[in-house]
Amino acid sequence: MLTPDSLDTTPEAAVGVAGPVPGHPGVYRVMVTTSLGDAYPVEVGPGILRRLPELLEERAQAHRYVVIGDKQVMRFHAHRLGTVLEDAGLRVDSVEFPEGEEHKTRTEWARLTDTLLKLGVGRDGCVLALGGGVTGDLAGFVAATYMRGVPVVQLPTSLVAMVDSSVGGKTGVDVPAGKNLVGAFHPPRLVLADTDLTRTLPRAERSQGLVEAVKHGAIADGDYLARIQELAPRLLEGEENSTAQIVIRSVEIKAGVVSRDEREGGLRQVLNFGHTLGHALEAASEYRLPHGTAVAVGMVLEARLGERLGVTRSGTARHLEAVARALDVPVAPPPGLPLEKALDHLKRDKKVRGGEVRFVLLDEPGQVHRGEAGSEAWSHPVPARLVREVLQSSGSVDD
Amino acid sequence: MLTPDSLDTTPEAAVGVAGPVPGHPGVYRVMVTTSLGDAYPVEVGPGILRRLPELLEERAQAHRYVVIGDKQVMRFHAHRLGTVLEDAGLRVDSVEFPEGEEHKTRTEWARLTDTLLKLGVGRDGCVLALGGGVTGDLAGFVAATYMRGVPVVQLPTSLVAMVDSSVGGKTGVDVPAGKNLVGAFHPPRLVLADTDLTRTLPRAERSQGLVEAVKHGAIADGDYLARIQELAPRLLEGEENSTAQIVIRSVEIKAGVVSRDEREGGLRQVLNFGHTLGHALEAASEYRLPHGTAVAVGMVLEARLGERLGVTRSGTARHLEAVARALDVPVAPPPGLPLEKALDHLKRDKKVRGGEVRFVLLDEPGQVHRGEAGSEAWSHPVPARLVREVLQSSGSVDD
Repeated sequence: MLTPDSLDTTPEAAVGVAGPVPGHPGVYRVMVTTSLGDAYPVEVGPGILRRLPELLEERAQAHRYVVIGDKQVMRFHAHRLGTVLEDAGLRVDSVEFPEGEEHKTRTEWARLTDTLLKLGVGRDGCVLALGGGVTGDLAGFVAATYMRGVPVVQLPTSLVAMVDSSVGGKTGVDVPAGKNLVGAFHPPRLVLADTDLTRTLPRAERSQGLVEAVKHGAIADGDYLARIQELAPRLLEGEENSTAQIVIRSVEIKAGVVSRDEREGGLRQVLNFGHTLGHALEAASEYRLPHGTAVAVGMVLEARLGERLGVTRSGTARHLEAVARALDVPVAPPPGLPLEKALDHLKRDKKVRGGEVRFVLLDEPGQVHRGEAGSEAWSHPVPARLVREVLQSSGSVDD
Repeated sequence: MLTPDSLDTTPEAAVGVAGPVPGHPGVYRVMVTTSLGDAYPVEVGPGILRRLPELLEERAQAHRYVVIGDKQVMRFHAHRLGTVLEDAGLRVDSVEFPEGEEHKTRTEWARLTDTLLKLGVGRDGCVLALGGGVTGDLAGFVAATYMRGVPVVQLPTSLVAMVDSSVGGKTGVDVPAGKNLVGAFHPPRLVLADTDLTRTLPRAERSQGLVEAVKHGAIADGDYLARIQELAPRLLEGEENSTAQIVIRSVEIKAGVVSRDEREGGLRQVLNFGHTLGHALEAASEYRLPHGTAVAVGMVLEARLGERLGVTRSGTARHLEAVARALDVPVAPPPGLPLEKALDHLKRDKKVRGGEVRFVLLDEPGQVHRGEAGSEAWSHPVPARLVREVLQSSGSVDD
């Protein structure tokens, strides 16, 4: 049994500390505060989908609910979810979209919106986003903009959604110019991560999903990073207690960060570690490179940038490589990836300020480098020449 | 010269009281608070567009600015605005869209977004929405969703935008199922209403724009309603001091309401007075009925609903009719309008809660009827039968 004492809680995560839910052994709750001053719970545990009606009553009362999910997830989980809600006397509709990041578009957002309008859903409706990162973003953006905003509840089914994307209120869609360039901050009323749902995940998806947990370790908790490496074999097999432990610790770290800076003005930037180069590599691959791999390579290269600048403790990049390898995630861009395109893409990054690309850098594993006080303290301009060098040398590090 | 003492300030508007801007005779500022706890100024006065660089420096510093406006407004005002900003050394681009409510669509929103992406505007950009209500909504929604939100400054050029739509943070677009059904709350950093810009407005547009001021009087200030009626001839001619006085008082009332309830959970509903039936009539006319006329008719009919229910003082509907007539605005739906379609549309209204249509009702001109405490206190369910009766009898009241 997992106990709160078994979780390392660094001072950084003080506002997001997991506590047991009384009367529900194995279930933990982490609170996340939003920029509006309110707070929502993230509950993690095995089989807790059945707690949903009770939690909706507590956190997201609505005249009716609409489950949004992709066809594949709906095939797996919609029946059970529908039964749980209908048994509780709640009014539920389900709306599907085709699976895959290529459907996280304005077109699909418009189609889902029009479907909700056709169903006659009013402002007193509530969206239940059932699925992985794509669904959380897309259904979240539908909720964010439906009649200027209806509540959304995040019901992550993938590991990456549980450890990361379901928490923090980011929603959005991809556009031809890049990923997530259109969206809104729309904090959920509730996040419910039923770790039982991860049982059916393929090993490769587990592997990819755990990369965001590695990032949490890299930016906030060196011991956690070591623990992920140690638990890697069990995590890849889907062993439940280890999985729940990782989800809870990652949610704590993420909750701690976003509670203090929901809108990315300052501290939240640290969550971009590995993502600035990661996104550029993904774009250069025309999104054939899986997100987890892209972020893993991004973290290794951004650690190397820090090492080259004399900011990051030598060996940090190697350490991150080792953890990623333990999770079976490649740590170098695939041969033939057009690195020039990645460099072009960097210039269009959302995080560009005043035309200059900024990076989150580490002091060492578990600790982000902090500059002067102020909102810019969490990221640092890096000369374009150095970025080019590190990126070009990365091709030689073969996996 | 207008002085603050010449403005009636009801207790309701206490949080939004106009004060003179020192050193700028004739310029008044009203503060509006948002649900995030911050506040933005609305400045009103003749020729104050030249104050824009100073106000941007104070309220919306950005790496670059993008003016969004329709072709017609840009033809009139873009040159002057561009000169003012460039003389101050600011980097400015302009983006146009075709004029008319029929372009307040997801398609135009996507096109404008893609244009900003093509220009390489980053998160440190700021949108300047130059125009009437359509532009404020559309450009505001572009800003609300561009990279999950960039700042917007509202520069209203029409009377309806100055007295009403530029204040309060509502943004959005129309969809086939209805108006404003997709959108976001995105409070501006600053609203600057240069009353000089209203000089070139056609009389019919003035007339339409003043309907929202009538609504402000109807819900919050009976004396203001009387003043609008008295000033009507001068307002329709575009007399400057009267126009400024009306803009300021309306901004005070609107600011007072939205400061206490930005997101329409409670008090803000009072701003829907006249709009529930008004929107239904607009929709039934396939948006051939001008918005101002629709709202004027809506106010008269909703006042009549209240009278029929014994809630609203007898004679209130007649009083509102008289003010609308003084402004040359029709007070009955045009002959042949399919009222059955309006009733259908009501059922799909955003304000429907639990399947029941609710209306804001008046006690008397200047005072909204308040029910039991709680968020539902500001609107009241009205039997469908009564709505049908009042709507059907309205055809006989000819203008």
